[in-house]
Amino acid sequence: MGEITRAYAAGEPRGKFERFDYDAGELGGDQVDIKVLASGICHSDLSMLNNDWGMTQYPFVGGHEAVGTVIATGANVRNVEVGDTVGLGWNSGSCNHCDQCINGYQINCRELEQTIVARHGGFADRVRCNWEWAVKLPDGMDASKAGPLFCGGITVFNPFVQDEIKPTDRVGVVGIGGLGHLALQFADKWGCEVTAFTSNAAKTDELRSLGADYVVGTRDDEAIKALAGRFDMILVTVNVPLNWDLYFSALAPKGKLHVVGAVLDPIPVSAFSLIMNQKSLTGTATGSPGVVAKMLEFCARHKIEAVTETFPMSRINNAFEHLESGKARYRIVLENDFD
Amino acid sequence: MGEITRAYAAGEPRGKFERFDYDAGELGGDQVDIKVLASGICHSDLSMLNNDWGMTQYPFVGGHEAVGTVIATGANVRNVEVGDTVGLGWNSGSCNHCDQCINGYQINCRELEQTIVARHGGFADRVRCNWEWAVKLPDGMDASKAGPLFCGGITVFNPFVQDEIKPTDRVGVVGIGGLGHLALQFADKWGCEVTAFTSNAAKTDELRSLGADYVVGTRDDEAIKALAGRFDMILVTVNVPLNWDLYFSALAPKGKLHVVGAVLDPIPVSAFSLIMNQKSLTGTATGSPGVVAKMLEFCARHKIEAVTETFPMSRINNAFEHLESGKARYRIVLENDFD
Repeated sequence: MGEITRAYAAGEPRGKFERFDYDAGELGGDQVDIKVLASGICHSDLSMLNNDWGMTQYPFVGGHEAVGTVIATGANVRNVEVGDTVGLGWNSGSCNHCDQCINGYQINCRELEQTIVARHGGFADRVRCNWEWAVKLPDGMDASKAGPLFCGGITVFNPFVQDEIKPTDRVGVVGIGGLGHLALQFADKWGCEVTAFTSNAAKTDELRSLGADYVVGTRDDEAIKALAGRFDMILVTVNVPLNWDLYFSALAPKGKLHVVGAVLDPIPVSAFSLIMNQKSLTGTATGSPGVVAKMLEFCARHKIEAVTETFPMSRINNAFEHLESGKARYRIVLENDFD
Repeated sequence: MGEITRAYAAGEPRGKFERFDYDAGELGGDQVDIKVLASGICHSDLSMLNNDWGMTQYPFVGGHEAVGTVIATGANVRNVEVGDTVGLGWNSGSCNHCDQCINGYQINCRELEQTIVARHGGFADRVRCNWEWAVKLPDGMDASKAGPLFCGGITVFNPFVQDEIKPTDRVGVVGIGGLGHLALQFADKWGCEVTAFTSNAAKTDELRSLGADYVVGTRDDEAIKALAGRFDMILVTVNVPLNWDLYFSALAPKGKLHVVGAVLDPIPVSAFSLIMNQKSLTGTATGSPGVVAKMLEFCARHKIEAVTETFPMSRINNAFEHLESGKARYRIVLENDFD
């Protein structure tokens, strides 16, 4: 049996987090134990807490933007060793044998294990995962701010890779929160023209400092109309319905509307809006380990990091209240204060 | 002034075609006059006749799958000469100067001229276009059957190019009519595994002879469910709503649902169905001249041709009745019998 993991768990939908201990059992040959240094809070932790997607099991230990130190490795682990600083995101295990895994698309593995689905996550003093999802931080990266890259970051980095965005492209980012503020930095350092679509125009100067060349109101229909035919990719990070037709119009020929927010209402797509200029609607969740590693290297090279607010992990309920208030700027990180 | 063009025109929505003469005026420097040999009938000729898309002008001369002989060229024309056998499809002019044109994406030109929109098409003894849309037939191609390639054909060929389909991919084709029966041949000769989705299972042997490896009922929900995760591209050639969620499920990771039919009802897309396996919904209409030329060469090399039924052009109204009956196998071609 393993050591006891000290965690914070909620017992029911919308419940408060309370101290919760569990025994993770014996470490498997392909597994890694990580002592958590800090763990970001993602909006999907809140969705899972509230069972919005109908797949939460209680007691629920959230946390899927964990960074920490490897404290144990199974017999088959080769990519990391005890003492390494690594991060862990939404995914915690894949089969490494199916067609998707062997082609480097582990996020599409049919046996994909997710860090906070039917298992316990990073709001704890330690967390466990399969070796491939423990990705080492590059030298010099600030570990205390790196957690949000592992879910929020990779979710908006992967589209640049998947859609083969070029530095000569024009990119729009809709919604400038935990994901969007990283997307602006990625797009800027990728070499693109960057437009931020925000519901909070007061943030304009701040958004420019994050890399936005232009700032437009998310619901400023007239302004969006004037951008018809402009964007090679519009990255939608919000999970509320938009005036979709307007955003489709704002795409350039061959442009892609790329959703990463889990919009619950179906997006009504007019076939004409796709057909007339070879446009697409696409999506992704997170990214495979090889892409995570590329992102970390890109962030280290370009000094890209999340703008964070920190809470001690023992104040997790205050941190969630702050998240729900919509005032987080831009990502909340819980720091392990167990010891 | 030019010679008089003898044509068939309808005077009102759902009207009958009647003889109609018009003077096309002086030939422009970038224009080409084509003496029509044969002109295919596309379902969009019927949509235009009936003003389904609200953009028909009457008297309406349809016909945008014309093949014939070049009889006159403007001073600036270099790609064809008098006597060449050429085809003309849905598009008849582009500016050749905008960013889309100079990058080879003439179909996305903002000044795109369409053969039967606000001008007269190929149900006539002659038809005019800008030089870039008059594409020469390869040697040895049967001109009497080539017309349907110029709209129906390119519409289902372009997705293979645009979506970068590989010979190792699995392709589904939904709806096996004028477009679909060509799509099956393209997919087969492209090297792909080919599944035909049809509402008419009685055609199974015929579809296999066109290249289908498998035949599935368009509305056989159980059979489609069993194909979950299978297809790299599903090409939808029908213009009626489908059980879209089922078809999304049938896509492999990174798979594309590619619509070419002008489905009028919006397609409701669940963000989750895109996000979970990097899937896309996309579309196209026709293809640019360079892609048309590639398609013709591919057809000549692989002996791909439309299965046609012919009517003399003077029996155009009978031909449209046959089209509307849904019994055309697979594409109707009108042969010029003016002389």
